[in-house]
Amino acid sequence: MINVAVLGYGTVGSGVVEVLEENNAQVSSRAGERICVKYILDLRDFPGDPYEAKIVHDFNVILQDEEIDIICEVMGGTGAAYQFTKQSLESGRSVCTSNKELVAKHGAELLELAARHSCNYMFEASVGGGIPVIRPMNNALTAEKILAVTGILNGTTNYILTKMDREGAEYDDALKHAQELGYAERNPEADVEGYDACRKLAILSSLMTGKNVDSEKIYTEGISGITSADFSFARAAGMSIKLLALGQSREDGSVTAIVAPFLVPEEHPLAMVKDVFNGILITGNMLGDAMFYGRGAGKLPTASAVAADVVDCARHKGKTVSCVWSREEAGLADISETERAFFVRVKECARREAEAVFQGGRSFSAAGCGSEFGILTPVMKESQFREKYDFLGDSVLGRIRLLG
Amino acid sequence: MINVAVLGYGTVGSGVVEVLEENNAQVSSRAGERICVKYILDLRDFPGDPYEAKIVHDFNVILQDEEIDIICEVMGGTGAAYQFTKQSLESGRSVCTSNKELVAKHGAELLELAARHSCNYMFEASVGGGIPVIRPMNNALTAEKILAVTGILNGTTNYILTKMDREGAEYDDALKHAQELGYAERNPEADVEGYDACRKLAILSSLMTGKNVDSEKIYTEGISGITSADFSFARAAGMSIKLLALGQSREDGSVTAIVAPFLVPEEHPLAMVKDVFNGILITGNMLGDAMFYGRGAGKLPTASAVAADVVDCARHKGKTVSCVWSREEAGLADISETERAFFVRVKECARREAEAVFQGGRSFSAAGCGSEFGILTPVMKESQFREKYDFLGDSVLGRIRLLG
Repeated sequence: MINVAVLGYGTVGSGVVEVLEENNAQVSSRAGERICVKYILDLRDFPGDPYEAKIVHDFNVILQDEEIDIICEVMGGTGAAYQFTKQSLESGRSVCTSNKELVAKHGAELLELAARHSCNYMFEASVGGGIPVIRPMNNALTAEKILAVTGILNGTTNYILTKMDREGAEYDDALKHAQELGYAERNPEADVEGYDACRKLAILSSLMTGKNVDSEKIYTEGISGITSADFSFARAAGMSIKLLALGQSREDGSVTAIVAPFLVPEEHPLAMVKDVFNGILITGNMLGDAMFYGRGAGKLPTASAVAADVVDCARHKGKTVSCVWSREEAGLADISETERAFFVRVKECARREAEAVFQGGRSFSAAGCGSEFGILTPVMKESQFREKYDFLGDSVLGRIRLLG
Repeated sequence: MINVAVLGYGTVGSGVVEVLEENNAQVSSRAGERICVKYILDLRDFPGDPYEAKIVHDFNVILQDEEIDIICEVMGGTGAAYQFTKQSLESGRSVCTSNKELVAKHGAELLELAARHSCNYMFEASVGGGIPVIRPMNNALTAEKILAVTGILNGTTNYILTKMDREGAEYDDALKHAQELGYAERNPEADVEGYDACRKLAILSSLMTGKNVDSEKIYTEGISGITSADFSFARAAGMSIKLLALGQSREDGSVTAIVAPFLVPEEHPLAMVKDVFNGILITGNMLGDAMFYGRGAGKLPTASAVAADVVDCARHKGKTVSCVWSREEAGLADISETERAFFVRVKECARREAEAVFQGGRSFSAAGCGSEFGILTPVMKESQFREKYDFLGDSVLGRIRLLG
């Protein structure tokens, strides 16, 4: 029997208990031993809850119980969660988590700690919810030199952008709708400003390169500046607008990492990822592109990924599963030196000037946006673009990068 | 050092050697030991080939060399490949294969043999080429009760159908084009009649249920009867036509398995899988839908999957990785008892009769097909549908199932 403790009885925590109980036959048969939830740590009481008797308020009860093999940290945050995770790993207990903030910040250190104590730190649920993506990167695409990861990693923003695209809604209205449906938080900043996607990108880029990519150094831009006019022009160009998280390996071993809205051609597999779904495109040097698609959030999908980690930890009791993510810092390329094409919206009255500045670009108009026009610029360095863009001053109404 | 022998130096075999050499640093670091190709078995000589010195013609040279740890069987067929695989596993060598025919036919037996000799039989490349799907089913979705797998598993037919959809081409012309591009064989039967997809479905359904699904008992229908008129109606109904392989777990433990063309709503993730790409949708009871997408064939993607199996075998030397696929035969549901809706094309002159027969269905017309009309029928048993369809005799011009 493998005894499990669940830290945090919120949405994901109660989901983890539900999955481990509901699918106990599957989970136990695949783990090779019966899996049993022994404790649930939470500060609150849950009178009447079917698992009320398993609730404890003191982490030391769990830490000191030698029967506990695996700990699911689904509390979130980087305070107590960090301390409890370290103590668990130091005591040789494997930890499975959905806590992307903690993984992005301390992943390399915690993996090293796990290896030192012959246990595992697993975080499948930290990116893409229930979509298996961490495990494929670690265990399936092992014969690949991974060249790039390109992902729609945040369901909230994808829902908002899909609504703007389909219904011509403005950003504020789409956000409000997402909040009413519970897809967006009352304080939506972490989602709409791209911070959530940024943390997930740090995790994926670290696994891609094997070095630590610091999420705080990733260039991050959110979607709050996107307008319905942007979508009109995108449609006219046969494209959609997506919040992408992009990590690319460079030949010198450094990484280009950026989170920002991008114009994506309608035929591109990521353009087909709609509503709250996530999609992660992995480009390998032998494989080409493979995409993983599904619900990037939600109680049960996320819990299912945590439970799959529990199975993996049970299968590898006393043995650390290889995960190449060292504490060595990855070099991050200066975004202003990267090259790409841009879409720019310009006031009609400045057409001649703008076309001269972005010589070689393609001008086009969009239905219902008669007083302005769009340019798809040639490929240039971000710094060059910025210069030209600034030069045009008030004549330009917005700009979005193109997925190249 | 882990020594590998590659059986068969054809397209996939030379790809395996290329991946193991080209990405040797990645592969070896992830395997934990240097991976080295020691032998290549082929009946032919390859004068001037960079790996000429590794070519042997006699399998016994490999079998008797105690330095050989892992064998890649990429010969195809179920004759010598079957014998060599058995002998390899019996001698404790793990075998990695892309041979879907052999896996579909003898997978359960060979897995049992591997377990008995503490080695592994791995077949990631047998379904979906380079797309990781076998390993996610075995190692990632372990907390899921898998309810269904729905896949576009054959790139050739998907290319043909995409061409018919996009260009209004007739089947024969699209097939000819696919042959010219090398996407279809001169004798395309195995692809266009659905046999290839059927073998892959047998593998996926066996992994889904844990019991053996016999590919020869799977109801299989190909795409050679699909016409440009079918696509006109599909478009008018907001759908596309895809060759789907569908496996569904039933509550009584049996499986519904079918390979056939289906109408798929344009918003469905599988409708977005175009050209030679494959997509595999896995439905779990906690996860909901997750899709895996990528190139389902091709030398390097397929070879990359074989090489990933090599890494996994190297990591698990002397230990069998759990793969739940027993020799117990899965019960296959009688297709005539399954329920679904259908699309039927009917001659305009028989409208009244057909509408009466398929009462409750939705009639519609399609541009350029004035002398006929379409009906989307209500959901009914296949046997009921067949009766009604036969009753209408020559008035009906075709029928395609609807993905429900």
